Amino acid sequence: MLKKEFEKAFSLLKNNSPLVHHITNYVTAHICADITLAIGASPVMADAIEEVEEMVGMSSSLVINIGTLNERTVKSMIKAGQKANKCGVPVILDPVGAGATTFRYETTKKLIEKIDFTIIKGNLSEIKTIGGLSTKSRGVDSIDMDSNSHNIGKELAKKLNCVIAITGQEDIISDGETTLVLKNGTSLLGSITGTGCMSASLIGSFLGTGISPLASASLAILTMCISAEMAAKRLSKDCGSKSFKTYLIDGIYNMDYDSISKEMNVEYV
Amino acid sequence: MLKKEFEKAFSLLKNNSPLVHHITNYVTAHICADITLAIGASPVMADAIEEVEEMVGMSSSLVINIGTLNERTVKSMIKAGQKANKCGVPVILDPVGAGATTFRYETTKKLIEKIDFTIIKGNLSEIKTIGGLSTKSRGVDSIDMDSNSHNIGKELAKKLNCVIAITGQEDIISDGETTLVLKNGTSLLGSITGTGCMSASLIGSFLGTGISPLASASLAILTMCISAEMAAKRLSKDCGSKSFKTYLIDGIYNMDYDSISKEMNVEYV
Amino acid sequence: MLKKEFEKAFSLLKNNSPLVHHITNYVTAHICADITLAIGASPVMADAIEEVEEMVGMSSSLVINIGTLNERTVKSMIKAGQKANKCGVPVILDPVGAGATTFRYETTKKLIEKIDFTIIKGNLSEIKTIGGLSTKSRGVDSIDMDSNSHNIGKELAKKLNCVIAITGQEDIISDGETTLVLKNGTSLLGSITGTGCMSASLIGSFLGTGISPLASASLAILTMCISAEMAAKRLSKDCGSKSFKTYLIDGIYNMDYDSISKEMNVEYV
Repeated sequence: MLKKEFEKAFSLLKNNSPLVHHITNYVTAHICADITLAIGASPVMADAIEEVEEMVGMSSSLVINIGTLNERTVKSMIKAGQKANKCGVPVILDPVGAGATTFRYETTKKLIEKIDFTIIKGNLSEIKTIGGLSTKSRGVDSIDMDSNSHNIGKELAKKLNCVIAITGQEDIISDGETTLVLKNGTSLLGSITGTGCMSASLIGSFLGTGISPLASASLAILTMCISAEMAAKRLSKDCGSKSFKTYLIDGIYNMDYDSISKEMNVEYV
Repeated sequence: MLKKEFEKAFSLLKNNSPLVHHITNYVTAHICADITLAIGASPVMADAIEEVEEMVGMSSSLVINIGTLNERTVKSMIKAGQKANKCGVPVILDPVGAGATTFRYETTKKLIEKIDFTIIKGNLSEIKTIGGLSTKSRGVDSIDMDSNSHNIGKELAKKLNCVIAITGQEDIISDGETTLVLKNGTSLLGSITGTGCMSASLIGSFLGTGISPLASASLAILTMCISAEMAAKRLSKDCGSKSFKTYLIDGIYNMDYDSISKEMNVEYV
Repeated sequence: MLKKEFEKAFSLLKNNSPLVHHITNYVTAHICADITLAIGASPVMADAIEEVEEMVGMSSSLVINIGTLNERTVKSMIKAGQKANKCGVPVILDPVGAGATTFRYETTKKLIEKIDFTIIKGNLSEIKTIGGLSTKSRGVDSIDMDSNSHNIGKELAKKLNCVIAITGQEDIISDGETTLVLKNGTSLLGSITGTGCMSASLIGSFLGTGISPLASASLAILTMCISAEMAAKRLSKDCGSKSFKTYLIDGIYNMDYDSISKEMNVEYV
């Protein structure tokens, strides 16, 4: 069922190269641009309040990432998100470190109040913070382990009427009805920065093709994780985390439906 | 004729390592710094209004790139550009997505009114926007095809009294009198982000040596395109866009006059 | 003596993965995040005035880098640094281009007046600027040569009651009592951008484990330089500065106490 959408997404990407508007952080902006282009979509980064409405109006999706948020960019996020809602452009939230500081927590709350998100993607700590549950994080990384994470995803998806994607050793995707556990990946993903941000860019790319939010989030995470598995195999002696990052983007660039279909390890719960 | 200037530029780069002041975007700033250093110049990124005049005063060229412009940085661009004009420091404009939003369009217009640019480099859509012609773009990418692009470049060069560089499948360089078509390159350049920004940094590097604007723009684009051809040959099975980007910068680092002279494919029109 | 601390630092990094809060520039932020994670610490970049105090309160060290400073971020630097002082979180200053412009000079002076730094790391030109000595720089790079650099480091360390690290062909580390000259490295380090910023991130990572400032600064620079030596050996024909940068981070990722201990070339003066 999802597989049909996956196949469609790859052919749509080739033909339409959807424009993915990012309002994001300055740490991973370049690798998010790289990965968006690598999968076949077209990235644009623009955060000036004077232009975000116009830019999102011509885009196929909007990714909001609070990684290095500040007063100026938060205003632009809200303006862009609300315009996207008006135009029917789907919006993805990446609530980086949502529970780390009061400013991030309050901003995340405000964004969710003012914008209807199609997909919210975070690590377990970020998602629990949004769900009002107590959690453990350090900086922008989750150190929470919770065997109950699929229920948490499902409940929050219902409550916020969107798709929730929880990334971790296993990844959970839920639209409140259907919940999937994705079991691909490698521990090496923990050795590089920006994997969360990159995943959000891939979600934006697939969502921009018009396939369902559940399929978009699932396909994005699978693409990331299966590319990572392939990248790990290319590593020779002396290679380390930076070669792995290069090979990961290479893998995204070479990714196709056949590889996804063959390698995916998905369970419905 | 140009070849003599090309040869001179490489030896001047080695001896003088000109300082290239960038006011640029946060997406490609790092790769612009990388490429400027790789070719033998010295990059500095500074956009605080308190310091841009002083910084440009000690620089050999100034690159203004509006990729992630905002109200604060636009003010710095104008201040730096005007100071550069006063000091005789040549200024390059990279009008990223000039036609994409009203803010970018108005900013580009204002920059051109207030600053005398030595070289303006853009894709066809950006250059047509500046020339007041209707065009097609999406985000910051051109999807315009126009067989008449050398005339467009030539006319705009005359009108603005500067060198116009139009990047695309073939690249057009014109100072209003002489117009060149550069035919090197590979379609893989379309698979990586920041090629336009990197080209502007190379232009700034060569222009900083004191060779003519026409030679600087031509040599920069040739350096980019010939490095890309060499990088494409290094790609093995499993490689993708990120390995290509690494090899491209490697190629810039190893570039010399002999390779340019041997590989360049230039036509005067 | 230092070796014992070096060994301890590597085992503490593995177990504790200290959080290193950066207020830094947008040019090298991504590679600083990469290198911090590669050595085994945990990077967080946050510069909004609303959150820096909370973020630094949960961190093991704070790195302040003025590479692309502006009015907004300078305020955050001061707020974060003062909070760090109150909490006992050690603070590192990377005064990028301190002597290049009045704004950088005044900012550096203000930071040193308002914050007690544990370690200040810079090239010779930056350190001499802080010490009130005349020097030569261009942009953010030092072109100063001074055979007297260990005395300069030692005197400034005494005066400011902190550790001074001067990077260059040879690196000087002094706490005012003990002064070391580190002789590892390769000239290739001059071919890539961000080596200074990366060194500061490594200092932050080691300092975050709780070992002494003198050992932290020494071990960070040794890790950088010995990784660079190893990276240089991996370069094959056609490789250039970008492959070197990739291999450098790979080397950091694979670095351990044994390699440091075996390869380090240190002299006490």
